[in-house]
Amino acid sequence: MSLICVGSMAYDAIETPFGKREKIVGGSAVYVAYAASNFIKPVNLVSIIGNDFEESEIKALESKGISFEGVERIKDKKSFFWSGRYHLDMNTRDTLVTDLNVLADFNPVIPENFQDSDFLMLGNLHPATQISVIGQMINRPRLIAMDSMNYWISSALGDLKRVLTMVDVLMVNDAEARELTGEYSLVKAARKILELGPKFLIIKKGEHGALLFHGYDVFFAPALPLEDVFDPTGAGDTFAGGFMGHLARTQDISFENMKTAVIVGSAMASFCVEKFGPERLKEISKGEIDDRIRQFIDLVNFDIALV
Amino acid sequence: MSLICVGSMAYDAIETPFGKREKIVGGSAVYVAYAASNFIKPVNLVSIIGNDFEESEIKALESKGISFEGVERIKDKKSFFWSGRYHLDMNTRDTLVTDLNVLADFNPVIPENFQDSDFLMLGNLHPATQISVIGQMINRPRLIAMDSMNYWISSALGDLKRVLTMVDVLMVNDAEARELTGEYSLVKAARKILELGPKFLIIKKGEHGALLFHGYDVFFAPALPLEDVFDPTGAGDTFAGGFMGHLARTQDISFENMKTAVIVGSAMASFCVEKFGPERLKEISKGEIDDRIRQFIDLVNFDIALV
Repeated sequence: MSLICVGSMAYDAIETPFGKREKIVGGSAVYVAYAASNFIKPVNLVSIIGNDFEESEIKALESKGISFEGVERIKDKKSFFWSGRYHLDMNTRDTLVTDLNVLADFNPVIPENFQDSDFLMLGNLHPATQISVIGQMINRPRLIAMDSMNYWISSALGDLKRVLTMVDVLMVNDAEARELTGEYSLVKAARKILELGPKFLIIKKGEHGALLFHGYDVFFAPALPLEDVFDPTGAGDTFAGGFMGHLARTQDISFENMKTAVIVGSAMASFCVEKFGPERLKEISKGEIDDRIRQFIDLVNFDIALV
Repeated sequence: MSLICVGSMAYDAIETPFGKREKIVGGSAVYVAYAASNFIKPVNLVSIIGNDFEESEIKALESKGISFEGVERIKDKKSFFWSGRYHLDMNTRDTLVTDLNVLADFNPVIPENFQDSDFLMLGNLHPATQISVIGQMINRPRLIAMDSMNYWISSALGDLKRVLTMVDVLMVNDAEARELTGEYSLVKAARKILELGPKFLIIKKGEHGALLFHGYDVFFAPALPLEDVFDPTGAGDTFAGGFMGHLARTQDISFENMKTAVIVGSAMASFCVEKFGPERLKEISKGEIDDRIRQFIDLVNFDIALV
């Protein structure tokens, strides 16, 4: 009973209107793992790091019940590095540097010890890599979720469509849903994506919340209105970690429980943006998470009163 | 026990990606009145029309319990005319023509018969005009709500700040809230606006829903995800009409009931965008409204399950 999380680990340089960090740990797998570790242990990490990845960061992750058995360490190369600068509205950013480094050779291998994991989160990687991971699972996990991005829609659409037939949940943002389908209406885009394979679709809209689609059902979770969004880096991955962590903890993959999972993911994402990188996620407590989920209940709860 | 609604009546020419109408009835007061008439009668209209306003349109409004006693008719001038073209994303539009016509001379007069109205909706007008209307009410209505727009923020800020001290509810869109306060964060903008006078603030975010602020409390209502937004014209005014109509019907101006009113407003707005102008609002039934509100409940309702 555990969660495998496959994705990048990185160092990032981030500049927002509130300040900057020259070197802070990042990568999709780091955010997913930190968020999920509040709900399920172990979180089985599958990733790749270089010789610059600090021991203290590994210890910080391990102290949360995140297993490094599936993390490959390359001695003569550096970790994946990304650098970006956010605009004032925080919804747009410029990528300044992308140094793939070790990530260029990433061929994830699932350790035997991870084979009993029943939840699998595939971070944003080449869809052929995602297919390779699914193929390595001797027993298909109960739930497979994947992230993707516009780059794969334009450069690897065939592989992307193939992996979509193999997963249960796709998480993309609104622009990606539109690009993948050619539909501006998110409702129409969702219909088309669900026909491609996934039984569930989550469309992330950043500060405007997230939509969960399943058949003809739809559920909406708002983003928490915050005084300041300090740094949005990793918020989508943190959402995914909270979502998958809640499902793995409850062992309930019904649409009803996925609604709650979307709220849990939104709550975790609302923490992520409060500080730089995963700083806030490292220090979060169970009590804080419960309080935040209560805030979401207050945010959307109203008396049922028909006219 | 009724609602006064002060605002423009107009003819519009509208072009959207789905088609166009050369001449269709519009204006903020028309949308507010049609929406509110589903909940409260009479709706006491205060507006101005020219010699071109068709008798059939007056009859259509009157048949819904909308009183024309406060509507001034100018024999030698034409009605306010607006023409606009929406872009593909439906969130932005170009105004092609604004012919004020009779609206240039609009000095609303509240008929004596309307003095017992306990709810007052001030549509988007010069804030000095809004002040004049409030001043005409012998007994202050239980609830006064107002709309405004960026034009008055830049051209009549002094009057705008004065009227803000006289109303209970301000409804603006996100861009206007930011412009009025100089704050990008809507939470910070809301704090500043509430300090200017209104006890309640609604920030409309179009397809991204609406936020209701009151002290340190906040409530969020999503917009219904629709296959197509056919024509967004009047959606904000329709929201206001549903909101005020629900409050006037229930005679309950608590924050709790305002949450429900925001949902009712959102439901009415979701009808408005389904056809051109107020076409859909003219034909709507009570059963349809109830069904739509149930859709909103399904859209945001989730099991409370703390971690």
